[in-house]
Amino acid sequence: MHAEIIAVGSELLLGQIVNTNARFLSRTFADMGINVFYHTVVGDNAGRLKAAIEIAENRADMIIFTGGLGPTKDDLTKETIAAHLQRPLVTDERAMESIEAYFKRVGRTMSENNRKQALVIEGSEVLPNDHGMAPGMIFSTENHIYMLFPGPPKEMEPMFLTYARPNIMNKLQVQEKIISRVLRFFGIGESQLETEIDDLIDAQTNPTIAPLAGDGEVTLRITAKHQSEAAAAQLIDDTEKLILDRVGEYFYGYDETSLMSELARLLKEKKLTIAAAESLTGGMFEKELTSIPGAGSLLMGGVVCYHPQVKQNVLHVKEETIAHHGVVSTECAAELAENVASLMNADIGISFTGVAGPDELEGKPAGTVFIGIKVKDRPVQVEELKLAGNRTSIRIRTVQHGCNFLLKCI
Amino acid sequence: MHAEIIAVGSELLLGQIVNTNARFLSRTFADMGINVFYHTVVGDNAGRLKAAIEIAENRADMIIFTGGLGPTKDDLTKETIAAHLQRPLVTDERAMESIEAYFKRVGRTMSENNRKQALVIEGSEVLPNDHGMAPGMIFSTENHIYMLFPGPPKEMEPMFLTYARPNIMNKLQVQEKIISRVLRFFGIGESQLETEIDDLIDAQTNPTIAPLAGDGEVTLRITAKHQSEAAAAQLIDDTEKLILDRVGEYFYGYDETSLMSELARLLKEKKLTIAAAESLTGGMFEKELTSIPGAGSLLMGGVVCYHPQVKQNVLHVKEETIAHHGVVSTECAAELAENVASLMNADIGISFTGVAGPDELEGKPAGTVFIGIKVKDRPVQVEELKLAGNRTSIRIRTVQHGCNFLLKCI
Repeated sequence: MHAEIIAVGSELLLGQIVNTNARFLSRTFADMGINVFYHTVVGDNAGRLKAAIEIAENRADMIIFTGGLGPTKDDLTKETIAAHLQRPLVTDERAMESIEAYFKRVGRTMSENNRKQALVIEGSEVLPNDHGMAPGMIFSTENHIYMLFPGPPKEMEPMFLTYARPNIMNKLQVQEKIISRVLRFFGIGESQLETEIDDLIDAQTNPTIAPLAGDGEVTLRITAKHQSEAAAAQLIDDTEKLILDRVGEYFYGYDETSLMSELARLLKEKKLTIAAAESLTGGMFEKELTSIPGAGSLLMGGVVCYHPQVKQNVLHVKEETIAHHGVVSTECAAELAENVASLMNADIGISFTGVAGPDELEGKPAGTVFIGIKVKDRPVQVEELKLAGNRTSIRIRTVQHGCNFLLKCI
Repeated sequence: MHAEIIAVGSELLLGQIVNTNARFLSRTFADMGINVFYHTVVGDNAGRLKAAIEIAENRADMIIFTGGLGPTKDDLTKETIAAHLQRPLVTDERAMESIEAYFKRVGRTMSENNRKQALVIEGSEVLPNDHGMAPGMIFSTENHIYMLFPGPPKEMEPMFLTYARPNIMNKLQVQEKIISRVLRFFGIGESQLETEIDDLIDAQTNPTIAPLAGDGEVTLRITAKHQSEAAAAQLIDDTEKLILDRVGEYFYGYDETSLMSELARLLKEKKLTIAAAESLTGGMFEKELTSIPGAGSLLMGGVVCYHPQVKQNVLHVKEETIAHHGVVSTECAAELAENVASLMNADIGISFTGVAGPDELEGKPAGTVFIGIKVKDRPVQVEELKLAGNRTSIRIRTVQHGCNFLLKCI
């Protein structure tokens, strides 16, 4: 069973909006074990939409349409599909009632073109729209299943999950369970990781292993199929073990986590508080940490010490340290980490000092970074990095390395 | 001249990422006056990619590929296109040198599969990658132009704008000039803005006016066509004047600027330094300000004062202020702004205190925010906001309001 997703809307072809519906549907289909081989985007044009339908019929069993079910003249998805299938459009009474009720509720008069929204392809299964007006529909022929959804994600997503997914699962009598697990790695490049586990990827059938490079990290998605969910999980466990035996030192977490989430979890578990002194990162570490709900109990606070004066006056870095070693130095990072911990009365102090670029600083090139970490009464540790990239990516990588370094220290 | 955009990558079909490249390219092509009639997404599969190429050749003159130029086995875009066009792949020496230089710079050993990235279709025009390793390329046949770009947006976007766009404009010998200007507004909703200028939008032909809601702001894109660039600019000027006569009070800047960029520009122009005390924003204001190159001369530094203790001990908010008014109060915001300016020896102090949620604080609901601003020896000003949304959007809105408030104060 193969599916194709066709998004209809000129606003997509003009770049006014992004096709997030295709992402949502793809992920949902992947979880259901249905392959999606193509996405297509086509404008509000009957001829080109008809051509896209014919192409999709040649390469997919299930064709999912999003968009073009609204009241305006531009909206022509169901009209085009109905004409193509030689079926009439008929008014769905329940949809009509709910449209009328909507206008009554908001106290507006219903303009005539809204009646168009209650039209459905004759013989289709109608999917109620709990968050808008245009209903969805599923129409089956001998060879294909056509599914039509409204374009706004807040209407489409709940309609899909509530009404369409159970319908599909039932139609397909899906027996086999498909489960996925994502392993996340930091500190190893995508190509290096792949080289290390090349033979495992090549030998893959069930489970499959799919690498993906993210922002500074690499993930592997392991997907297994089996009639028993427990057996599928066991297949994944076995593959995970083979992978981690080789590259386990770079592994940091599963699925939707991040280095910062892992750090927050660990700080909470060990009941440790933290404070940060941020020079080149300018507050990014703390901003990321405080984006996690509940981080307030972990982060005491911190100092953004962009200007050398602030390093001296507020964080009491010694004048001779700056004079002899500069602010981009092991020594400065060490003092910043120690002093911010004591100023903020925190268990851990972390510091970031370096050159974000584009210009060099103190004769050191952009990407030169020092991270200091002071944990309780243990001696302060400093890690030096040489990062590539532009200002933004140097700052992002610095924060990631800081999290990773700290995860290993505590 | 019609273009089709083909994104190659199984991660798109699995719903792991969204096809933002298609949006960027569509918008850019729209500005260039080139129609995009279809987007296609296909996985890392040579057979299905070849089928997609053949379909695109039947309906487009220019075929734009994104993704699949990397070092791994999954990356097969150029291999598939080269085979389809019956052209060999050859090593591009300049690309090879820059890949080697990259590995040297970051001090990592280059694994063998990275050499693959320097391969290009023989006879193509090579587009340098200033932000990554894999070069892009343009290959022309009698009937079609094929353009290949790397998948990561931070590599693709600058490559397109710097190298591909001028190349295309030149190839097409575009006579008519098409220029666009974006007007940016803050503090007015999209539907309110549209209502105010409804008749202007309806009457549009040349220039056209396209509203777009962004993250907390609204933009209007004015696009004019004319054989003379000066005349096109005049058309835009006239339309802009009509718009600003009605909603000018919400206007803050043009094109790719942001509230923060405008703030940085103004601080620089007026030679003012700034310091920030951030509670609920947790460093986000400073992180945004320091993401702008050269901000180091404007921002002295700041204190992330998440914990009440830090507000008292580091920023010297009076104990009785916190006891009587709480930390989410006009009084606390005022003291934070004044004290951070004097601690950091800055001309301006700005403070953010409030409830990011999801939980309430001091009996005040999420979205209650106080922003304090102290400019030199003028009296401190405090603005109270009641924001809607989740934790992330409350924090983003708070920073935007802070910039907007400050832009009006200085």
